[in-house]
Amino acid sequence: MKALFLKNGNLQLINAVRPSPVEGEALIRVHLAGICNTDIELLKGYMSFTGIPGHEFVGTVEQSSQRALIGKRVAGEINAGCGRCSQCLEGDSRHCAERTVLGIDKRDGAFAQYVVLPDRNLVQLPDSIPDETAVLIEPLAAAMQILSQVRIIKENKVLIIGDGKLGLLTTVVLKTTGAKIFLSGHHRERNLKMLSDIEHIDISENPIKPASFDIVVEASGNVEGFMTALKYIKPKGIIILKSTFHEDVSIDTSYIVVNEIIIIGSRCGRFEHAVHALSVGDIVIPNGYVDKTFSINEGIKAVEHARERGVLKVLVKLWD
Amino acid sequence: MKALFLKNGNLQLINAVRPSPVEGEALIRVHLAGICNTDIELLKGYMSFTGIPGHEFVGTVEQSSQRALIGKRVAGEINAGCGRCSQCLEGDSRHCAERTVLGIDKRDGAFAQYVVLPDRNLVQLPDSIPDETAVLIEPLAAAMQILSQVRIIKENKVLIIGDGKLGLLTTVVLKTTGAKIFLSGHHRERNLKMLSDIEHIDISENPIKPASFDIVVEASGNVEGFMTALKYIKPKGIIILKSTFHEDVSIDTSYIVVNEIIIIGSRCGRFEHAVHALSVGDIVIPNGYVDKTFSINEGIKAVEHARERGVLKVLVKLWD
Repeated sequence: MKALFLKNGNLQLINAVRPSPVEGEALIRVHLAGICNTDIELLKGYMSFTGIPGHEFVGTVEQSSQRALIGKRVAGEINAGCGRCSQCLEGDSRHCAERTVLGIDKRDGAFAQYVVLPDRNLVQLPDSIPDETAVLIEPLAAAMQILSQVRIIKENKVLIIGDGKLGLLTTVVLKTTGAKIFLSGHHRERNLKMLSDIEHIDISENPIKPASFDIVVEASGNVEGFMTALKYIKPKGIIILKSTFHEDVSIDTSYIVVNEIIIIGSRCGRFEHAVHALSVGDIVIPNGYVDKTFSINEGIKAVEHARERGVLKVLVKLWD
Repeated sequence: MKALFLKNGNLQLINAVRPSPVEGEALIRVHLAGICNTDIELLKGYMSFTGIPGHEFVGTVEQSSQRALIGKRVAGEINAGCGRCSQCLEGDSRHCAERTVLGIDKRDGAFAQYVVLPDRNLVQLPDSIPDETAVLIEPLAAAMQILSQVRIIKENKVLIIGDGKLGLLTTVVLKTTGAKIFLSGHHRERNLKMLSDIEHIDISENPIKPASFDIVVEASGNVEGFMTALKYIKPKGIIILKSTFHEDVSIDTSYIVVNEIIIIGSRCGRFEHAVHALSVGDIVIPNGYVDKTFSINEGIKAVEHARERGVLKVLVKLWD
C-alpha cells in the first residue's frame, strides 16, 4: 500500500506492507486523512516518532471480528489503550500509560491506504456527514474537549490565541456557548469571512487591555502564546492549553500563584460528541476551512503545503 | 518606633516614624510578627520591595474610626484593595489590581511596633487563641485557601512537596480531608515527631512511582519543586502551586497538554476560616512549629536565623 513514512525528520512516500489487525482490531481502508500541526511537530522531532504519521481520518472497515462493523464508514479515536489498567477500565484509554497513539506514538497512522485500530476505537458515521467533514472529527472532538473540562457561560469574555486550524475550530466550538469570543491571529480578513459574531483582533500588533479575559485558550502552537495567555488572563481566570510543540517555555510561576490562575491542559475529546454536534447541525465547519486536497501520490507536497504560513486544513486522498 | 527596613537587599533596624492611618484605616500596635519565606524572597529581590517587610502579625487596635475596634486584639488580611473595582466590590480585595500588600507591595509591614491597615482588613480574635498561634493565622489561611479551590476527598492520594513552614501547615490543613497524605522533604525525623497519620518520604533521595498522585501541592519554594510535581501527578490530576520565588521555571507545556494536567495558583485565604478552625480545634498547630522568638532589637539576627536550612517559624516580639 502507499504510505508516507517518517524517519529522522525525513518524510518519504513508500510502498508499505498492508498492516494486519490482531484480535480485537479492525483493518480500515482510509478514504481521506487530515494534516494536523502535531504532524508538523513530529517532523521537527516531537515524540521522536518513526513510522507512518497521520491521526485524522475517515475510512471503511474491511476486516473486523465484530462483523457488524464490516463495510461501515468510520472515524477512529487515536488512543489505543491496554484495556486492563484503571484508566482503560474507567473507559478513558486517552490516558492509559501503556497506550499507543495513532500516527504519533508506537502505532502507524493514517497517511496510508490502510490503517489498523482496535474495534472499540471506531465510531460509525451517519450518511449526513460527508467524508470531507468526517475527516475533521478528531480535531473537532479535541476542540470540544474544552467544554467537558470548563464551564463557559455567556457572561464570559474568552480570548482564543492563534487563528490556525486548531484556533479556528476552537472558535467554532466556543461560539456555541454564547460567550463573548475574541479570536487573535495574523489573518483577520480571512477569519472575518469564515466566522461572524465574534471579535477579530491581532494582539501582537494591537495590544488590548491586559488581565481582562475570564478564559484564554492557547492554540497558537508557539512559546509566545503561553506568555500572551498569562498577560491577558484575569486573576482567578482559566487558561486552556491546547497546542503541543517541541520546545520548553520559561514561566514566572509566582505570577500564577499571586493571581491564582488556573491552567488546564486539554487534548483529545470524545468522538461521539463531535459526531452528534455535526449531525444535528450544532456545529458547522466554515467554508474555507479546508484549504486543499492532495492525492497520496503528492503526499510530500501536501505536507510541504500544510507547513506554509496561513494555510488551513490540508487533506490527503488515499485512493484515486 | 523600632522597625526593620529593607532597601536593595539590605535589612536594617531603624527608628522609624510611627505611621498615621488615613480615613478607613486603623493603627495597630504589633505584639508579634512571623517571618515567612516570602520575606526571605523579598531580601533576594522579589517584588523589588523597599520598606518595612512583615505580613504575619497579631496586635491591638489603638486608633480607628470604627470605635468598636479600639482595644481589640486582631490579625489583619494583607491585601488592601481600592474598594471601588469589581474585585473589591465582590469582596475580594486579594485580586484588586490597585491593591497594596502589607510588607510586600507598596505598603509598610509588620516588622515594626506599629502598622496601619484598612479597618475592613482586621479580624478580631477570640481569647482562646493565644498570640503565638494568632500570628500564624495569615499562613494558615493561605494553606486553607487550597480547600476553597479544590475538592479533596478521602479517596485521594496527595503529595506535598516541601517540608518547610508552608509545606507543614499545608499538611496540617489537608490532613483534615481524610485523604492519604505524603509529605516529602529533607527532615523526616523532625516531621515525624510533629505529624502522625501521614507518610513521610524524601522523594529526592528515594523516588517513588511517577504519575501516581491525584493531587500534588508544590510548597518547596524552588524551581525543582515544579518539576517534581509534574513527575508525580497522575494524568488529569491537579497541581497546586503555593510557593512564590524570584526565578523562572522552564516547562514542557506539551506534557501538561498531553496529560491534561490542571495547575492552580493558590495564594491568600480568608482569615475567618482560619480563626474558626483554630477556635473550634479543627486545626491544631503542632508542637515545634515555632522555632524561636526574637526581640525586635535582634530583628536582623531573627531573619538570619530564619534563613538557615531546616529552621521553621521564627517570630519577632515587637515590645519587651
